[in-house]
Amino acid sequence: MIERRTFLTALASIFALERIGRAQQTPAPDDVIADLVAANHILAMENVLDAMGHVSVRHPARPDRFLLARSMPPELVTAADILELDFDANPVDARGRTSYLERFIHSEIYRARRDVNAIVHCHAPSLIPFADSDVPLRAMYHMAAFIADGVPVFDIRQAAGITDLLVRDAKLGKALAASLGNKSAALMRHHGAVVVATSIPNVVGRSVYLDVNARVQIQTMSLGGKFTSVDPAEAKLRMTDPNEYARAWELWKRKVTR
Amino acid sequence: MIERRTFLTALASIFALERIGRAQQTPAPDDVIADLVAANHILAMENVLDAMGHVSVRHPARPDRFLLARSMPPELVTAADILELDFDANPVDARGRTSYLERFIHSEIYRARRDVNAIVHCHAPSLIPFADSDVPLRAMYHMAAFIADGVPVFDIRQAAGITDLLVRDAKLGKALAASLGNKSAALMRHHGAVVVATSIPNVVGRSVYLDVNARVQIQTMSLGGKFTSVDPAEAKLRMTDPNEYARAWELWKRKVTR
Amino acid sequence: MIERRTFLTALASIFALERIGRAQQTPAPDDVIADLVAANHILAMENVLDAMGHVSVRHPARPDRFLLARSMPPELVTAADILELDFDANPVDARGRTSYLERFIHSEIYRARRDVNAIVHCHAPSLIPFADSDVPLRAMYHMAAFIADGVPVFDIRQAAGITDLLVRDAKLGKALAASLGNKSAALMRHHGAVVVATSIPNVVGRSVYLDVNARVQIQTMSLGGKFTSVDPAEAKLRMTDPNEYARAWELWKRKVTR
Amino acid sequence: MIERRTFLTALASIFALERIGRAQQTPAPDDVIADLVAANHILAMENVLDAMGHVSVRHPARPDRFLLARSMPPELVTAADILELDFDANPVDARGRTSYLERFIHSEIYRARRDVNAIVHCHAPSLIPFADSDVPLRAMYHMAAFIADGVPVFDIRQAAGITDLLVRDAKLGKALAASLGNKSAALMRHHGAVVVATSIPNVVGRSVYLDVNARVQIQTMSLGGKFTSVDPAEAKLRMTDPNEYARAWELWKRKVTR
Repeated sequence: MIERRTFLTALASIFALERIGRAQQTPAPDDVIADLVAANHILAMENVLDAMGHVSVRHPARPDRFLLARSMPPELVTAADILELDFDANPVDARGRTSYLERFIHSEIYRARRDVNAIVHCHAPSLIPFADSDVPLRAMYHMAAFIADGVPVFDIRQAAGITDLLVRDAKLGKALAASLGNKSAALMRHHGAVVVATSIPNVVGRSVYLDVNARVQIQTMSLGGKFTSVDPAEAKLRMTDPNEYARAWELWKRKVTR
Repeated sequence: MIERRTFLTALASIFALERIGRAQQTPAPDDVIADLVAANHILAMENVLDAMGHVSVRHPARPDRFLLARSMPPELVTAADILELDFDANPVDARGRTSYLERFIHSEIYRARRDVNAIVHCHAPSLIPFADSDVPLRAMYHMAAFIADGVPVFDIRQAAGITDLLVRDAKLGKALAASLGNKSAALMRHHGAVVVATSIPNVVGRSVYLDVNARVQIQTMSLGGKFTSVDPAEAKLRMTDPNEYARAWELWKRKVTR
Repeated sequence: MIERRTFLTALASIFALERIGRAQQTPAPDDVIADLVAANHILAMENVLDAMGHVSVRHPARPDRFLLARSMPPELVTAADILELDFDANPVDARGRTSYLERFIHSEIYRARRDVNAIVHCHAPSLIPFADSDVPLRAMYHMAAFIADGVPVFDIRQAAGITDLLVRDAKLGKALAASLGNKSAALMRHHGAVVVATSIPNVVGRSVYLDVNARVQIQTMSLGGKFTSVDPAEAKLRMTDPNEYARAWELWKRKVTR
Repeated sequence: MIERRTFLTALASIFALERIGRAQQTPAPDDVIADLVAANHILAMENVLDAMGHVSVRHPARPDRFLLARSMPPELVTAADILELDFDANPVDARGRTSYLERFIHSEIYRARRDVNAIVHCHAPSLIPFADSDVPLRAMYHMAAFIADGVPVFDIRQAAGITDLLVRDAKLGKALAASLGNKSAALMRHHGAVVVATSIPNVVGRSVYLDVNARVQIQTMSLGGKFTSVDPAEAKLRMTDPNEYARAWELWKRKVTR
């Protein structure tokens, strides 16, 4: 009997290993994959991302997983490059494909924020002045009203002392998620930003207009006068449309799929 | 007799409804439609409009109506997307096509300003610093001399308190038109601008050069010296050509119709 | 006898008129025409000119005449659009083609400056801050060393009081030429600039780098520190090559003739 | 005997001249040539170089030589345009091809810095404000962390008094190399910059991000607040990857070889 049990245990182990080896990605709808690929291309076209940075979406069928391209320039991403990752930021079925070093930005924010379905991490130059200085980024106009309640700045040094500035593990991802709190965007000192939203079109729209908004604020402040920003009460009314950026998304997607 | 009257009344109602149902757009000249389509594309090409904003023209045969694209990105507009709207901002023959939410900007300005035949509503980033601050936009050079008599700032909050910042009804459209007064452009706090002119080429030319002018003023003020702007008397002499932007229009139209 | 004399006088008049009617352009070398067409396209490509502004060259065979496109956007100019003008700014053989209103800029500078063989009149936005303010434009780096001896500002108001700001006659052209003096460029308040040089490649090179230089100075001054500009003695040594912009011209011409 | 000696000496001279005349370039690997050509095109595409400036690589087989295009616009460089130069900045086998006037920038830095395998000399407008003023360029974000230990400014006037600002001989090249010291980049007053790295991809990446970083600093300082830059200790950790810019290089090379 023991032999048989040993045999079965061994057999089970073999199957388990096999299963891990063969771990399959949960099939994601084609349109979600297509939208994520388009998001990569749009963010490159709009200069929110250059060769660096990334965009992800929570898996529609597995809320504890998310989809993210393998480590590569966003502009070149195709459907075959999309990986499924779990909340430990491990790819489910890498098949030799390398993951982004900073994938923990995504895993830890999805873990912390059930309302978030899509995340962008970017290094848009217009945002760095607000990440590196004591001047807070403010909502200068209605397309960026989603930041009317403020944009926190994540200082990795306060979380972990001297680092290489990269969010390269779960601990740092958690610290960033804590800094983000319940907000829609956070700046990362000497690094860039993270933007979150309920959908791919929304996170792309927010990222594009966050960049425009930052440039507007820089120019406004250079005038030297007094200025105001969107009132949180106005912003709340402005942000009720769940498809806020649908018209822009329509245009952008058309452009990158021409 | 009553029966007959009731019958006739009912019959009349049916015909009236039928007429409404069948309401036809007043045929507009093909070249006006073509120019309006080109204006959409030019304003996108020149980055005055992105996926948002719109341009309209007063109907040549029906001065109490105007032509405006259905709700869509200007860059993608075709002749089939042009709607005819009345001064209540209702499309005459929508056939399922959605109108821009902020079409009241156009209806109320056309109603208030008989001299205006074309209107642009935009969110050009260069204009926001002057919409959000107490620094007045000034005419920095001759191509933008049309603002030498000043650019009012419309603050929706003074008109309607806390809103979503959008001009989504006739009341707000009237308040904006009142703010514009007899001027050629008005800024909209935390939002954008409206530009008016006597023709499509002129409203496009004014919009493009208003954007250039704003950037010039921002750079001029960053130098920190004393500066002057175009004198209203000079501007009056400069603005006598009814085809002021004809040469630019020729170039732009050629580019978008290549 | 009187009759005969009258007859001959009348005959002479007819021939004179005929001669004027038939006035021929002095044939200009094809390569000069080609370079002038290229200059128009390059200045548009480099955003020194938009739909407005112009570039001319002194006629190689007739130093009292110059070549300038008919009134049209520079980007669209072809060889067939090039007119020959005399120093009264009259086209020699217009054949129905309209001249630029501000052609007097060219005629009066060629008249006043024997060393000048090519002229650009532009409205480059980067230059206006220095035309409109009391901050002098300075030579920030070696490619723009030609302005190390200063850039005068022409204020049309001092020359002619309230105008439409345009150089629309010989008197205003002379006033501008006087303001330019022996310099390489002059700014025109609320308007733009004029740049002169010994050749088409040089005037194009100077115009492109004057624009770059202006943007550099704006950014330098925004830093708020102390700064220096190219010393006139350094500039004199730097500017000895008669083909200073040959390498850039090679690239630009290749690009616009692809 | 004298006759014979004279004869032999003359013969030897002839052979020596012949040898010089026939001097062969040391064959360089095709992929190095291809990368150098790509670097020229990438730097033009990214607006680090315009028609001027140059990029070189140390010869893989002859560390006392380097590869540099003949005098021409970087955007037009092909493999046939690459010259091999020695540390006296002489081309080994010019075959009528002209060298860049400022090739001494490369020869003297390669001579002084054994760790350097690739060099860019550029005139990027964003860098000039820091070259011309007393405001030091600082590392504003992680992609430009390589300048966290400072960017010296080379003032040719201190080295050689009044010049034409160009590094046109070995003496000036040595002075520039001395100013660079052991740093990764140096600014050149009224001129531009030099950037050095261990490889072609790295020197291209550093040049592109030095430009971005400069624009970020200009915008940061225009906000008027307090700001910080990357700590040298953070930068040291950040700069450990010898293929730091591999992902960007992959994208850029793909774009220029399409």
